[in-house]
Amino acid sequence: MNFVVLSGGVGGAKFADGMAKSVGPENLTVIVNTADDQELYGLHISPDLDSVTYMLAGLANPETGWGLAGDTWNNFEMLQRLGMKPWFRLGDKDLATHFMRTNMLKAGATLTEVTRALSRELGIQSRILPMTNSRVRTIVDTDEGLLPFQEYFVKRQCEPAVHGFIFEGAEEAEATVEVVRAIETADTIIIAPSNPYMSVDPILAMAGVKDALLNASAPIIAVSPIVAGLAIKGPLAKVMAELSLTPTPVVIAEHYADFINGFVLDEQDRDMMADVVTLAIGPLVTNTIMSNIEERATLACEVVNYADRLRPEKLGGCRLDVPKQLPTG
Amino acid sequence: MNFVVLSGGVGGAKFADGMAKSVGPENLTVIVNTADDQELYGLHISPDLDSVTYMLAGLANPETGWGLAGDTWNNFEMLQRLGMKPWFRLGDKDLATHFMRTNMLKAGATLTEVTRALSRELGIQSRILPMTNSRVRTIVDTDEGLLPFQEYFVKRQCEPAVHGFIFEGAEEAEATVEVVRAIETADTIIIAPSNPYMSVDPILAMAGVKDALLNASAPIIAVSPIVAGLAIKGPLAKVMAELSLTPTPVVIAEHYADFINGFVLDEQDRDMMADVVTLAIGPLVTNTIMSNIEERATLACEVVNYADRLRPEKLGGCRLDVPKQLPTG
Repeated sequence: MNFVVLSGGVGGAKFADGMAKSVGPENLTVIVNTADDQELYGLHISPDLDSVTYMLAGLANPETGWGLAGDTWNNFEMLQRLGMKPWFRLGDKDLATHFMRTNMLKAGATLTEVTRALSRELGIQSRILPMTNSRVRTIVDTDEGLLPFQEYFVKRQCEPAVHGFIFEGAEEAEATVEVVRAIETADTIIIAPSNPYMSVDPILAMAGVKDALLNASAPIIAVSPIVAGLAIKGPLAKVMAELSLTPTPVVIAEHYADFINGFVLDEQDRDMMADVVTLAIGPLVTNTIMSNIEERATLACEVVNYADRLRPEKLGGCRLDVPKQLPTG
Repeated sequence: MNFVVLSGGVGGAKFADGMAKSVGPENLTVIVNTADDQELYGLHISPDLDSVTYMLAGLANPETGWGLAGDTWNNFEMLQRLGMKPWFRLGDKDLATHFMRTNMLKAGATLTEVTRALSRELGIQSRILPMTNSRVRTIVDTDEGLLPFQEYFVKRQCEPAVHGFIFEGAEEAEATVEVVRAIETADTIIIAPSNPYMSVDPILAMAGVKDALLNASAPIIAVSPIVAGLAIKGPLAKVMAELSLTPTPVVIAEHYADFINGFVLDEQDRDMMADVVTLAIGPLVTNTIMSNIEERATLACEVVNYADRLRPEKLGGCRLDVPKQLPTG
């Protein structure tokens, strides 16, 4: 079976981890946003790819969600001592990933090949696919001017009000053949509870992705990253307000309305069920807050079972013994 | 007063440290070989500059001679885990130096400016000057073929027999104006006990250096890196044998004969005094093995006092209370 997840960073990585545990890692493909990538000290940094990679390798730092568990900060402290005023934290071990990526890219490898090599070395059985091998960079249009994504996100801590996002290079960029093929051959496609505007839209902007989704035979399900008017993590609710959007699952569902035929929202938003875009069998309402590994796996399992009801033949993807909660409505 | 030292890595750094302590750091300029520089993971690494910088900052690892005291190896271990088979050890803190250098070079700074900035941040009062701002790379001609310097030196541990050295880019490279001016205005010029063929020759190969030395009014003194037929450190004696040269101070003095008017050899080689190239007042014979900081400073002080005898007016550079051993012979 082929389960495909479209993912940004930490939130998507957690959901992907739940999926790997619920359907088996070898049945999972994660398509990851790379528009948050940046160059720092000559190194190629891919924050979202690394969050997914470390999570699926079982090496993610459980406290931050990003970076490696048990990493140290001697390099970061020395940068401070040298007066560099570093604002993007890279752990001593984490740097090794960027060294390997930078080396391989300089030697002519694609980002897809680098990501596969890292997965292999870390014993990951799932397929992690960067959305593109081309350079795409999110520029945030703010009331302080245009800011490269990480400067907005990390250096400025999402403080400047957002007017919109520019995906620099997106028009010339293409989804990789691996990404398009994964969507085409998927049995189930799930948009993780990642930020739609910052993390998922860059993936959708890649030539080939939207068409593949529109033509996909698999059910496509989005999981709401908004719960009770707040983002599970990150600045999504704040950004939606700045974009004059009401932070509700309803608005998220509308954002994906073109191609989804399933939607998942949290119990806390049960009263909004009826307002979610018209779907064949109505949305799944369940606990979407993944506080621990059990909740991740349970959510993934429920989404997988929900997908089974969205297609003619039942595939029965979830291996876990999770109560098969039926979608209501 | 202007004391100028021409230096390679560890051995030269130790001698420069002794000089800083004996004449005062503010009176010292160290001109450093950069032909051992390399690019690794997209980073610009300058091993000899760093050895001198860390030593003069009081931060050098006393056990290795290179790298920072108290550094950690978490990055290196992660590179191994990722299957990178790293062979050039870069400590977690040490990496910060390469990040800063790479960032500044990418932003258009010269290596001279980077080196000055690092010195400033680390509180170094001496001037550390890279020999050139251009790219020069030592290639070692061995019986296993042409090897980039660090591959020969670190990866292959100097095992392949050497036929010669190629300083790639040297013909197009120029010494910086700072380097030429330092030599022109020096009161004393000392060639540290560094490897003549690997560390000092690249400096001498820079356009402007040889002429400046030949025209310098200051006495020029070389300190022998060979003691009792062995190199104080590194592969010098082995390399000399491979180049069909006898590893003696006499051969070292001949190598610099064009422009030195003073030479320093170790007590253990006292019997070779008479064979050293003709000098106005004969060589200085003393303990040249710098086992600790006192021995470094004492050697430096003796060389400084020796220099005072090589010119008409006495400058009296050494501030330390070191017995003013007279050159014999």
